[in-house]
Amino acid sequence: MNKSQAIAYLGPVGTYSELAAWGYVQHFCSGSSPDLVPYSTIPQAIQAVVRGKQHLAIVPAENSIQGSVTMTLDTVWELEGLQIQQALVLPIKNALLSNCQDLSKISAVYSHPQPLAQCQNWLDQNLPQAQQIATNSTVEGVQAAKQNPNFAAIASPRAAKMYQLPVVVCPINDHPDNCTRFWVMGITVPTISGTHTSIAFSLKKNMPGALVKTLAIFAEREINLSRIESRPTKKSLGDYIFFADAEASLAESRMQEVILALADITEKLSVFGSYGITAIAG
Amino acid sequence: MNKSQAIAYLGPVGTYSELAAWGYVQHFCSGSSPDLVPYSTIPQAIQAVVRGKQHLAIVPAENSIQGSVTMTLDTVWELEGLQIQQALVLPIKNALLSNCQDLSKISAVYSHPQPLAQCQNWLDQNLPQAQQIATNSTVEGVQAAKQNPNFAAIASPRAAKMYQLPVVVCPINDHPDNCTRFWVMGITVPTISGTHTSIAFSLKKNMPGALVKTLAIFAEREINLSRIESRPTKKSLGDYIFFADAEASLAESRMQEVILALADITEKLSVFGSYGITAIAG
Repeated sequence: MNKSQAIAYLGPVGTYSELAAWGYVQHFCSGSSPDLVPYSTIPQAIQAVVRGKQHLAIVPAENSIQGSVTMTLDTVWELEGLQIQQALVLPIKNALLSNCQDLSKISAVYSHPQPLAQCQNWLDQNLPQAQQIATNSTVEGVQAAKQNPNFAAIASPRAAKMYQLPVVVCPINDHPDNCTRFWVMGITVPTISGTHTSIAFSLKKNMPGALVKTLAIFAEREINLSRIESRPTKKSLGDYIFFADAEASLAESRMQEVILALADITEKLSVFGSYGITAIAG
Repeated sequence: MNKSQAIAYLGPVGTYSELAAWGYVQHFCSGSSPDLVPYSTIPQAIQAVVRGKQHLAIVPAENSIQGSVTMTLDTVWELEGLQIQQALVLPIKNALLSNCQDLSKISAVYSHPQPLAQCQNWLDQNLPQAQQIATNSTVEGVQAAKQNPNFAAIASPRAAKMYQLPVVVCPINDHPDNCTRFWVMGITVPTISGTHTSIAFSLKKNMPGALVKTLAIFAEREINLSRIESRPTKKSLGDYIFFADAEASLAESRMQEVILALADITEKLSVFGSYGITAIAG
């Protein structure tokens, strides 16, 4: 990878996505130092890759507490040709940052909806009086909290240092094993090696048992699904797109058979390629 | 049903849940007028039923645009013995309410996270300058918006009338066919008649293909699944609870066979009973 092959991420500087991007560079770009380019929303970061402005995008796909990042799933389904190059697993340590050390005087807490949800019980118990305000990123929340001595933000201890807002309490996650899986995505030749393959599909109408028939295609070839997730098509209630992660690579003939069989039975099929999963340090 | 058999819902008065509750009373409680009791969160409304304080709870389960209401799924999995008595489908018409008729002067928009997400494109295009602030209910958003002439709320036209805050634009849904499915839940003898049966299960560890084997149990008996949804167990990434809606009733022997077979193969199995689905007017 050369320096011109820049990486888009959900910015600004200091977000968990940027931390994941640095982890990616450290593990996979030895000898080169690609630019990291912040975008203010997940769809914008992914579109930058589809439109050829950036080489790769690193976006959150799933959190161990809150589940799928539905914005990511909905965006990769809408756009064409995205391939997952790598999955990254990052431990998430949420901290409460504020210039106010007295919890009872904090009137508002700013953060991205995911960290707000990950700390919901802690907030209910410790800051019942504070309004919870959703921002586009954790760092946008830090910037808002700096404007008023009675505001707080939920972000990483690294963001606290970077934006010079003191850590009041850390960690404040409701569940200790909080981690997020990110996808490194690009528009490249299909990726076929790795341990996992991700696909998404919609089903033909008026075909009873279509979902089960689809899943049986994997079972007949002894391919385990590590995840299946449904998202609404947004057309009508009960009309779904399914996202599935299979524990096999497209380099294997059994997985190639699965794709051919799925193409017959599904209405629309997207194959996001094969990839490995790497744990990176928080 | 007599008057002492009150119904808990996600309040306060004027929410979509209250509208669904009125629809339920109109369709299913002829001759009686049960009290409708507002609760400020979904878990509180459901817990009121589990603790015997109220007879039924009416909570949102799924929206056609945003997908599952994960708070409802997570709560019914945690608590024991809940049975779905009925599903209700309500069309959702979101309106922008404010004392300010000039969109460019609106500085903040308050609403429940679901309506905020359902109107995301409209908000990006028409109110790019406005902060989006999440509230526990649409009506809490209306109350916040009444405090400042430059604030707005997203809620139903009915809430606008009820709380005397003018409708500025309606509808502002990004997708026209926006509707929400509600569950009417109680702690009663298992409900066995209707068109659908809902279950949730976790899988035994180290059992490859466990999910596909589980779904095959339905396929072998020609029972269609209208929905399958995964939620994290919150223990570790890749560890899921699955929610499924089957198009069969527990009164049918093939569905009883499914439950017996599932009990063998799953780690934990919850059966939320059988019920019908009724469309109600918005």
